[in-house]
Amino acid sequence: MKKQVTTLAEVAKVAGVSRMTASRAMNNQPGVSVHTREAILRIADEMGYVANPLAQKLSAGQTRLLGVVVQLHTPFAADLVLGIGSAARGAGYEMLAYSLPSDNTEKANIGNVVSLLQQITDGVIAILPSEGEYLDKLMQSSVPVVTVDTITDEGMFPSVAADSYQGGRLAVSHLAELGHKRIGFISGNQRLTSARARKQAYCDLIAQLNLDQDPDLLIEGDYSQKSGFEAAKKLLALPERPTAIFASNDMGAFGAMTAIRENGLRIPQDISIVGFDDVPLAHQTHPPLTTVHQPLQEMGRAAVNMLIPLILGLDLPSRQTVLSTNLVVRESTAQLKT
Amino acid sequence: MKKQVTTLAEVAKVAGVSRMTASRAMNNQPGVSVHTREAILRIADEMGYVANPLAQKLSAGQTRLLGVVVQLHTPFAADLVLGIGSAARGAGYEMLAYSLPSDNTEKANIGNVVSLLQQITDGVIAILPSEGEYLDKLMQSSVPVVTVDTITDEGMFPSVAADSYQGGRLAVSHLAELGHKRIGFISGNQRLTSARARKQAYCDLIAQLNLDQDPDLLIEGDYSQKSGFEAAKKLLALPERPTAIFASNDMGAFGAMTAIRENGLRIPQDISIVGFDDVPLAHQTHPPLTTVHQPLQEMGRAAVNMLIPLILGLDLPSRQTVLSTNLVVRESTAQLKT
Repeated sequence: MKKQVTTLAEVAKVAGVSRMTASRAMNNQPGVSVHTREAILRIADEMGYVANPLAQKLSAGQTRLLGVVVQLHTPFAADLVLGIGSAARGAGYEMLAYSLPSDNTEKANIGNVVSLLQQITDGVIAILPSEGEYLDKLMQSSVPVVTVDTITDEGMFPSVAADSYQGGRLAVSHLAELGHKRIGFISGNQRLTSARARKQAYCDLIAQLNLDQDPDLLIEGDYSQKSGFEAAKKLLALPERPTAIFASNDMGAFGAMTAIRENGLRIPQDISIVGFDDVPLAHQTHPPLTTVHQPLQEMGRAAVNMLIPLILGLDLPSRQTVLSTNLVVRESTAQLKT
Repeated sequence: MKKQVTTLAEVAKVAGVSRMTASRAMNNQPGVSVHTREAILRIADEMGYVANPLAQKLSAGQTRLLGVVVQLHTPFAADLVLGIGSAARGAGYEMLAYSLPSDNTEKANIGNVVSLLQQITDGVIAILPSEGEYLDKLMQSSVPVVTVDTITDEGMFPSVAADSYQGGRLAVSHLAELGHKRIGFISGNQRLTSARARKQAYCDLIAQLNLDQDPDLLIEGDYSQKSGFEAAKKLLALPERPTAIFASNDMGAFGAMTAIRENGLRIPQDISIVGFDDVPLAHQTHPPLTTVHQPLQEMGRAAVNMLIPLILGLDLPSRQTVLSTNLVVRESTAQLKT
């Protein structure tokens, strides 16, 4: 399917003018007499000439498009993208998303697509960017880049994140207030800033509140449902099992809930559990999950509200936007039975 | 941030040749002497000229990119997009997605973005396209279009869908085999082919299997969780309430489960429930939901496997690909107590 379109050169030829003159006439630029301009416009119209809006926008350097690079197949992507789309539209921009492969074995031209995205957009929002060619391309970007969720080297890009440390403290405080002293913890991948902050919050509060500081209660995980399942199995197999578990994210908490049920224990009567993220399914589990709410849509909007000033060449008041989290108490946590 | 790039025109000027000659030299086309070509390439290199790969690909009419238009904020979008991305990459293509607004009140330039997507991609996959300007743009598309889930006017585009009629029969048969005779049904929006097929399957089987043909058992819904909740409340308020409910989709089933619990009834001891879709959260509810599995990733892959032959100018053996569904029996359905 070859596109059959009338080119400006063809219009110019029929009108007997140069391509430059035809272009000036089409774009209402000076240097063309009224009479010539009208003749050219009439011929263009008769020949069905349609200016290529993409080419025009590309040459003008403004497409009013934002690019988003994200792993769409993650439970928080949908809400982030929703927030980005809504804020972008509110500001007169539209959004195109590139979904990173979910599987490392997939051969993808990530670098090429990220380059292309930079060519057709005015700015890019990268959600949880990882290393490699992709990050190199972002660092060499010809358009502004804002990241959502920081990466190991903080400060590389202006970024938006939820306050994971504060959220982690909310989760542990809640369990402590319910009387729990022996609280298990399932960490996320420690390469990620969010995962490190949540672990730090757990460690700090366990010490500050004089709760059980047993290193066996801290199991390293990777934010996956499977790792939550495995970690909870280890916690439940301890000689003295915890009476509550704080999982670093909801997916891990879901895995842990399955392990708890397989062990014949009841939530929250026998063991309390708290997650982190408040993904849409958190209120659908049985019992509904107590968790730390990340304002995902707001984070998406905040990223747009940083990116657009950058596109317009303005300075940002701050390169880091950190949004507060809050605890959503549902039914997976209860007072410790004494 | 204005992009500061060397243009081919600047290279040509410095080399003292026409832009056409410079272009021929850069693209290894005939009509330029070896000596001139080498001089031009050297100057281009010194000036840091980088051919605009997007412009080159656009003029060649092949970008090796597929466009996807989808409402990302729906529970089945992630799996579809995953299947599309994986199949596209397997065939040497990459994918850019445009997410439709989730909210009708958002002012979006859908038509413009869909046009732009057609300009920068070799083909477009439209997931559940709806009416309006967007559909018009798709119908005038200069590149091939494949839809996932048909729309009201069938056959408008080559399309991929799951067999909703067969899946609906599986759901009702399963409940009938468990001894249920009084089966409530919650429909989807009847503008959608899938919703009509599921309702037809329910009506046909109720008649064929001599189950209760009470029109009060059929409640119209719209696939939303809220409508599932409201519909189930109506069903439970009937003088003789159903012993089982078939919801046309999982989101509706989740809403219905909430209504059932609020009524103080147990699933499946007091009432069985079956959904449709098998979204990722279906196995996380308590009890895990019995549902009809739509092979979403396969559907995404099938769409790519129809689109790429169309891009290559080949004829499709069939304009409609219909994939089988299967029943996943979990714990939300049980034998009717007699």
